[in-house]
Amino acid sequence: MLIVITGPSGSGKSTLANRVLEELENVEFSVSHTTRQKRDTEIEGKDYHFVSEDEFKRMIQDEKLVEWAVVHGHYYGTAKKELARGTEEGDILLDIDVQGAGQIREKHKKAVFVFILPPLFPELRKRLEKRGQDSESAIQKRLGVARAEIQAYREFDYVVINDELTKAVEELKSVILSQRCRREIREKEIMPILRSFAERD
Amino acid sequence: MLIVITGPSGSGKSTLANRVLEELENVEFSVSHTTRQKRDTEIEGKDYHFVSEDEFKRMIQDEKLVEWAVVHGHYYGTAKKELARGTEEGDILLDIDVQGAGQIREKHKKAVFVFILPPLFPELRKRLEKRGQDSESAIQKRLGVARAEIQAYREFDYVVINDELTKAVEELKSVILSQRCRREIREKEIMPILRSFAERD
Repeated sequence: MLIVITGPSGSGKSTLANRVLEELENVEFSVSHTTRQKRDTEIEGKDYHFVSEDEFKRMIQDEKLVEWAVVHGHYYGTAKKELARGTEEGDILLDIDVQGAGQIREKHKKAVFVFILPPLFPELRKRLEKRGQDSESAIQKRLGVARAEIQAYREFDYVVINDELTKAVEELKSVILSQRCRREIREKEIMPILRSFAERD
Repeated sequence: MLIVITGPSGSGKSTLANRVLEELENVEFSVSHTTRQKRDTEIEGKDYHFVSEDEFKRMIQDEKLVEWAVVHGHYYGTAKKELARGTEEGDILLDIDVQGAGQIREKHKKAVFVFILPPLFPELRKRLEKRGQDSESAIQKRLGVARAEIQAYREFDYVVINDELTKAVEELKSVILSQRCRREIREKEIMPILRSFAERD
């Protein structure tokens, strides 16, 4: 199963995704490629594959990406081989920008789409300022983009409001766990039970 | 939101329902009426409303029930006023037999239906024997009914396999929590956030 989570800058979707990966079994993280600079807290190959713009463009030409987009001046994309990493039992968690999620939707109709909504606007501004990685003008730009992007929530199956991290983590986990309980997903587990009822007296 | 859980005798749906009620906030239990005898572990008004057959039949005549059925020789039913107990924020959890669930489906199209599947047949037999409340012939009858009833899983949105209680509790909780994250359910919480983005600079 493919679970796509997205949301605007500062919605905290990456923090959420990491917490869910720690706390849930059988979920693999799809590691995106990006041309943006690594932040101090990030690990190459875990948070992102950090590549040069030349490398990224070559991946586009070679059709190695299932989706890509330019966000705040940097390339972001998902390699096709990342989505193939899910084991038979496991799920793949894709943490991508709003544009990328739209491209995934066209190709993976059965994926589950979760939109992470930031808290009220003043709170989001505070978060971006506190993160301290952007200049005031860059923050203004992010807030402008966020304002446009949050409208996209309408196209998503589930919405998680990230105003309180613990609650948001529980909610995102519940969306993933509940998908595993869908009848059509479960048929393989159900069959042996049905057979045991048919066989015995 | 109305959450209907059902499953055959011995599937452990009542144990599951009670655990979920303890662990989740904003869920109210719809207390069914029944003419069967109270078990020692059960509490009047909490597990069931225990009534006489005469009283039950009067409720049927007065159209006070949203569904009712005869299961293993006893009447079981849900009073209409039980379903009205949900607060604006809260969910109602309905723990009913498979026949009753079918009746609810016709009247409450938007309810969420969860089927609790017992473990393998020999394990179910062991459970019923261990419970010690039935004679061997009554157990045989329950197993026969269970065999027919498990086929109904096909009509349900979600299936929880109750082979390990802790896991099954987590799964049922996730189904309920995830419903609260559905976009259309969440619009009321989303609106103030959207407004805060529209208003500010």
